[in-house]
Amino acid sequence: MDKMKLKLLYSDLKSDLDIIEKELAVAVNSSSHLLNEASLHLLLAGGKRIRPVFVLLAAKFGNYSIDSIKSVAVSVELIHMASLVHDDVIDDAETRRGRETVKAQWNNRVAMYTGDFLFANAIEYITDLQNTYAHEVLSHTMVELCIGEIIQIEDKHYLEQTVRDYLRRIKRKTAILISASCELGAIASQADEETVKHLKWFGYYVGMSFQIIDDILDLTSTDEELGKPAGSDLAQGNITLPVLYVKNDPDIEPLLKEILAGTISGENRQILLTKIRDSDGINRAKQISNLYLQKALNEVKQLPANSAKKSLQNIALFMSKRKF
Amino acid sequence: MDKMKLKLLYSDLKSDLDIIEKELAVAVNSSSHLLNEASLHLLLAGGKRIRPVFVLLAAKFGNYSIDSIKSVAVSVELIHMASLVHDDVIDDAETRRGRETVKAQWNNRVAMYTGDFLFANAIEYITDLQNTYAHEVLSHTMVELCIGEIIQIEDKHYLEQTVRDYLRRIKRKTAILISASCELGAIASQADEETVKHLKWFGYYVGMSFQIIDDILDLTSTDEELGKPAGSDLAQGNITLPVLYVKNDPDIEPLLKEILAGTISGENRQILLTKIRDSDGINRAKQISNLYLQKALNEVKQLPANSAKKSLQNIALFMSKRKF
Repeated sequence: MDKMKLKLLYSDLKSDLDIIEKELAVAVNSSSHLLNEASLHLLLAGGKRIRPVFVLLAAKFGNYSIDSIKSVAVSVELIHMASLVHDDVIDDAETRRGRETVKAQWNNRVAMYTGDFLFANAIEYITDLQNTYAHEVLSHTMVELCIGEIIQIEDKHYLEQTVRDYLRRIKRKTAILISASCELGAIASQADEETVKHLKWFGYYVGMSFQIIDDILDLTSTDEELGKPAGSDLAQGNITLPVLYVKNDPDIEPLLKEILAGTISGENRQILLTKIRDSDGINRAKQISNLYLQKALNEVKQLPANSAKKSLQNIALFMSKRKF
Repeated sequence: MDKMKLKLLYSDLKSDLDIIEKELAVAVNSSSHLLNEASLHLLLAGGKRIRPVFVLLAAKFGNYSIDSIKSVAVSVELIHMASLVHDDVIDDAETRRGRETVKAQWNNRVAMYTGDFLFANAIEYITDLQNTYAHEVLSHTMVELCIGEIIQIEDKHYLEQTVRDYLRRIKRKTAILISASCELGAIASQADEETVKHLKWFGYYVGMSFQIIDDILDLTSTDEELGKPAGSDLAQGNITLPVLYVKNDPDIEPLLKEILAGTISGENRQILLTKIRDSDGINRAKQISNLYLQKALNEVKQLPANSAKKSLQNIALFMSKRKF
């Protein structure tokens, strides 16, 4: 998939994304200097703002008005930011285990409450939309996200988990917020019920396809491409789809147990990664991702004719076909 | 204030509080075994359920129906529980500093997401009430609570803070959620606008009065009464109202700096506590608490005649006059 199209897509939305960016800065502003510092740091760290993009594109299928949809876009991005902060809170502490400073703990505490603040802020933003159904969608999304985080902890290191466990987990972790972004964008612009439903499912399928690719790339990319060591998921105990397909391979299983136990040598880690890369686990996972992509494109087809249809296709293809 | 009246008050509400208790158990139930365990543990740890009591009593000033108000009561209690869990997350880690186990970290992580889950759940519960204003009140309350937590971190150890800083902090930390409990109970039962306003302010004043007493008791009670060493607030760097009044006393200031720096001896800590107890800081703080109590009672007076009026008075008096 060519990046040119994605750039084009973003350039079409640029002025509205700028408005959202400014609104995000307003949203995280509070009477606490410390909170402002922490939130602004996060905000400036950027990110692709992919969820706001979905909100905007979905809203094109109704009465598009940036004023009425910007709260929704801000809201979903704040939830995404909050979940990133909370993901980091304890991880950070772990890497410093044994030599934790008061400052590190203090930062953890600030980070936790910054995440809470962003969550609460997201909820407050969505109330701009005087629509109780939208509140239900968003709050339900948050509940599912949290359950997903806990289940991810429960499933860690657990080799007996099934493909279904994995799919349920990434649904909660990733797909549901992208799905909600699409659904809420459509609701906020008063799109008709059929359209809302197609967009909701489109978001869900794209999210699933995207996360599977993300998990594949963690195994197949170079350390440089990832900006962290390849196989980090496994090293942290997270068992992803390609691994589930090959976990009982007698060549792979012993090394898998070593990496999950944290006892693997650097050399064996490379051997394990090579074995997984050469296995059919990667291709089978790609096939599943592709299946979700097809389902997503199928939902787009059923949407009413609209300039945003092409953009949705492009973004779905881009997210599901990226190389790293 | 006699506890008999409070017991009587609770017995009047008992059957409805039982319904709320059952609903809380339903609320925290999820598909994650780990999450259920953590949440149930919290739930069984109990607490006075004072916020649901305020919801119920406030609702008596409208069309009282437990079915329509129980979601509100569950919602505010879930927020309270969530904030308690998050308060503990990092504290726990600190007490184990230097000998942290993976298990401790793991528990911290679970605790953080359990708190997030309870927050999100609270928001989902309030959507049962198809009232966008109620969502606004609750989400705004959550935002303020989080800002309060961060400001409390910022103000720690900071001796130059003013009485106004302190009051703003306890407003966010305590008063605003009690105020929201009263307001939301009244809104959920469709009480008239004047009544909603009086109940909202009543809750705010009670919350302020209550928190000041709580902070006094941390200094004046015995270790046994508190279940933790007296003066814990100070030892943790939290400077409360009685201390603010006497911080420049030449007899107190040097010891104060020692306890805030964490360098105080056990003997000097006792001397400091005795000096504070004997100072007029305690009485001046009590006077401020009393002022808020009078304001609370004044709001009750202006409410329409109703059996719940007496209960609100009793609960206000009880919370502001308790000995430990």
